[in-house]
Amino acid sequence: MPSPPPLKIQIRLFCGDEIAMGPGKADLLDAIKAHGSISAAARSLGMSYRRAWLLVDTMNRVWYAPLVATAPGNAAGGGAHVTPTGEAMLQHYRNLQDELAKASDCDDSRALTIAMLAEPKAKQKA
Amino acid sequence: MPSPPPLKIQIRLFCGDEIAMGPGKADLLDAIKAHGSISAAARSLGMSYRRAWLLVDTMNRVWYAPLVATAPGNAAGGGAHVTPTGEAMLQHYRNLQDELAKASDCDDSRALTIAMLAEPKAKQKA
Repeated sequence: MPSPPPLKIQIRLFCGDEIAMGPGKADLLDAIKAHGSISAAARSLGMSYRRAWLLVDTMNRVWYAPLVATAPGNAAGGGAHVTPTGEAMLQHYRNLQDELAKASDCDDSRALTIAMLAEPKAKQKA
Repeated sequence: MPSPPPLKIQIRLFCGDEIAMGPGKADLLDAIKAHGSISAAARSLGMSYRRAWLLVDTMNRVWYAPLVATAPGNAAGGGAHVTPTGEAMLQHYRNLQDELAKASDCDDSRALTIAMLAEPKAKQKA
């Protein structure tokens, strides 16, 4: 089994102090597309409904148009779908992730990876 | 006053489950270079000595050679310096940050930035 790539790149877009788009929000949009409601999307990600609702609320306050549209709720939390603006922003974010992953395949990352042990040595006693 | 760039990119290199290099460790290496001890470096970053010590311990367990060399302690925590391997890994990491910042200046990031409000709208009541 090949080892996972040791380099992780996180991209966050800020609107003031709030995260307009980042890894968690992008995954939530994908899950809303797949499941059709905030509650089912949250469940599929092992995220609380409250947290998912707060992420959606932020996404709907920081862009010119909302990224998620919700239908009036029932016991299951009502339906939700990703708007055309949401689809577009998600796609730009995924493209940006791909661009940076490509750019990270460079001499500097190779030099770092080569100098790293396959596994950490044991911790010292503090 | 120009607004800060809305895009933040975090790069982390993993050795197994441990972070071998990331934003906090790179800043700590810079601070050790500037201040000559782990305790003074921690102070300059508003970080506890214990946390700085743990970051140094990790950095000294995940690369082929230690990144920080420490002198026997006194009350102030003893002196420390960044090793040649540490200098090299820090430079590769900073170069990688520059590469990705350059790569992020692309159509997708512009499309995201343009679609974002200057400030978030007010929060809704939950």
